[in-house]
Amino acid sequence: MSQKYKTGRHLLQIPGPTNVPDRILRAMDYPTIDHRGEEFFSLAKKCLTGIKDIFKTESNVIIYPASGTGAWEAALVNTLSPGDTVLMIETGHFASLWVKLAKRLGINSELIETNWRRGADAEKIAERLLLDKTGEIKAVCIVHNETSTGAMSDVFKVRKCIDHVGHNALLMVDTISSLASSEYCHDDWGVDVTVSGSQKGLMLPPGLSFNAISKKALAAYKRATMPRSYWDWREHIEANSTGSFPYTPATNMLFGLNEAILMLKEEGLENVFARHKRYAEATRLAVQTWGLEVLCENENDFSNTLTAVLLPDGHNADEFRSIVLDNFNMSLGNGLSRLAGKVFRIGHLGDFNDLMLIATLGGIEMGLSKSSVPHQVGGTQAAMQFLKQN
Amino acid sequence: MSQKYKTGRHLLQIPGPTNVPDRILRAMDYPTIDHRGEEFFSLAKKCLTGIKDIFKTESNVIIYPASGTGAWEAALVNTLSPGDTVLMIETGHFASLWVKLAKRLGINSELIETNWRRGADAEKIAERLLLDKTGEIKAVCIVHNETSTGAMSDVFKVRKCIDHVGHNALLMVDTISSLASSEYCHDDWGVDVTVSGSQKGLMLPPGLSFNAISKKALAAYKRATMPRSYWDWREHIEANSTGSFPYTPATNMLFGLNEAILMLKEEGLENVFARHKRYAEATRLAVQTWGLEVLCENENDFSNTLTAVLLPDGHNADEFRSIVLDNFNMSLGNGLSRLAGKVFRIGHLGDFNDLMLIATLGGIEMGLSKSSVPHQVGGTQAAMQFLKQN
Repeated sequence: MSQKYKTGRHLLQIPGPTNVPDRILRAMDYPTIDHRGEEFFSLAKKCLTGIKDIFKTESNVIIYPASGTGAWEAALVNTLSPGDTVLMIETGHFASLWVKLAKRLGINSELIETNWRRGADAEKIAERLLLDKTGEIKAVCIVHNETSTGAMSDVFKVRKCIDHVGHNALLMVDTISSLASSEYCHDDWGVDVTVSGSQKGLMLPPGLSFNAISKKALAAYKRATMPRSYWDWREHIEANSTGSFPYTPATNMLFGLNEAILMLKEEGLENVFARHKRYAEATRLAVQTWGLEVLCENENDFSNTLTAVLLPDGHNADEFRSIVLDNFNMSLGNGLSRLAGKVFRIGHLGDFNDLMLIATLGGIEMGLSKSSVPHQVGGTQAAMQFLKQN
Repeated sequence: MSQKYKTGRHLLQIPGPTNVPDRILRAMDYPTIDHRGEEFFSLAKKCLTGIKDIFKTESNVIIYPASGTGAWEAALVNTLSPGDTVLMIETGHFASLWVKLAKRLGINSELIETNWRRGADAEKIAERLLLDKTGEIKAVCIVHNETSTGAMSDVFKVRKCIDHVGHNALLMVDTISSLASSEYCHDDWGVDVTVSGSQKGLMLPPGLSFNAISKKALAAYKRATMPRSYWDWREHIEANSTGSFPYTPATNMLFGLNEAILMLKEEGLENVFARHKRYAEATRLAVQTWGLEVLCENENDFSNTLTAVLLPDGHNADEFRSIVLDNFNMSLGNGLSRLAGKVFRIGHLGDFNDLMLIATLGGIEMGLSKSSVPHQVGGTQAAMQFLKQN
């Protein structure tokens, strides 16, 4: 029965934007305040300080009223000069979009390609850097958690490999779908620019994005000659010191960000990470029980926040997703570019709990039947078994 | 792992108050308006007209700013005189509370008891009325859906039995946990006073209750001498004709009621009833698969809105419920009075869908394991099988 009138709660199980908790929605549900008044300055300072704990950094975190794509651009234009070369690891669709953006800005992007089924290979990065005797490569750009494939890259290992070969490149990392859900340490892992967004682990609607920046990145900023204005770090850093912004901030999103930081601290970041890891394991167990294939082929690279699942040949993942949405009022993520129609993606991140996961897996399992995708029933049951024992 | 910090959405699977949909919460989320102004009169008229379609009546429906208990009292004080006798069928805890209330008001309540595992026996009612040659019994009071046991009574059959023996008693029916979720026809079933509340099938928070009244009930009102003021029908009927109320109405609840009526009409009442019946069947199938016993022992009386489940001897249902709440962030209904500790109750009514049911059953199934209640796993799986085929 296709439900024309959708009752009950919609499950938004795309890998972000994620389900925004009521507590955040209510925190945002106040009249906008004067962004040049003391009440705002006090709020902004709480956000600017609190967000550092989420990135695990003691240096500056810039908050942009922008999508994550804006924060990608900000990372590049603040640190590079026209014609500079960056080494980018194309681990999937989002990594490839960052490459495209860099090219449009006049940056020379050198690619290390992958099969879109694993994370970045730190040793390959080191090999390439070793050949760069003249320091042509100004930055290495990787995506921590590739939202299109469900594969993670070992950021700290990449850092260590760069250091090991003694190369001076900046390390820039996109954490849009990993921050506040998978372990991440901007300072300890030696990242120079961390890019992130509001709409995934931070449990906010889309609309804010971030650059966390190291001292080395700030030094690069001073030499960098890319044209920049909206994204310019200096004006932010100066304004932020008094709790203000260089242009109109997204005030109500900051109401929400303040609440999100409080919630993450109440739960405790280590608990947040453990929770996501547990849901990812339960999800893969369900996929395995169904006899389907997880797209990520390297178990060290399994994502904690989403799982991309391959459908057998002859079955279209978008038709499957549409049947799930029509029948069970749940949105699953689609396959992007070369993965279109081949995979569906299960988001298990953000404000999520055991029974939401069971509902998600139950909807997928019933959807597989309704779509006549060959599978073994029992994946949901296997996940329940895992959850109650772990 | 007991979740100290509760992430994700709480599942409120008590048999009401039910999960209030966002659409209703948002409809209520406006400043209170002048209840003596045109904007209010227009809203009130929409509610007063629309609610008639929900009760399936063309006569008056009184809307009280009160709990359901108030509407029980209203039904009695508007139609009876001190010392009058009513025949009440004690099908469970809520029926017994109505009896207690009647006694406090000085009404002589004659009881037909049951084992709290089935609905009212229409033939027994007829037998008793047949003995009442002088018309001492002024009303028969039954609970359509007994929220403490999950057993329904066949209201239309009771009406036909009363008519069959030619008795003049009024028929009063409590539909607090059945209205807008199980089929109910105030007019066609010949009910004189229907009592209901806002917090179950109407998907609203608690705070409004209702009396739908027949012409015969209105005639009884004129003879009735019970003291009454707050509950007096006449002042409501007079004020309602212009869209006003005799005292301050619960304005924001009426914002919500108007939205609830719109939603129920968009889905279509017949679809609403079919949806609830389907969830009740899936739930009983899960209970059966677990090897547990549904409290209601008469399959014709199975409730569409809740299922009460007996735990095996030696297992305390409240401990089980507490484990489910701690581990899975879900509230289940407790056993009331003589059923305390013996049963838990699953609410499957209101704004609900397939995946919310799977989440509910999944939480129960995992909770049974965590509480070491002997059971067969697979109830959730059986319900999924049923849902995808029906």
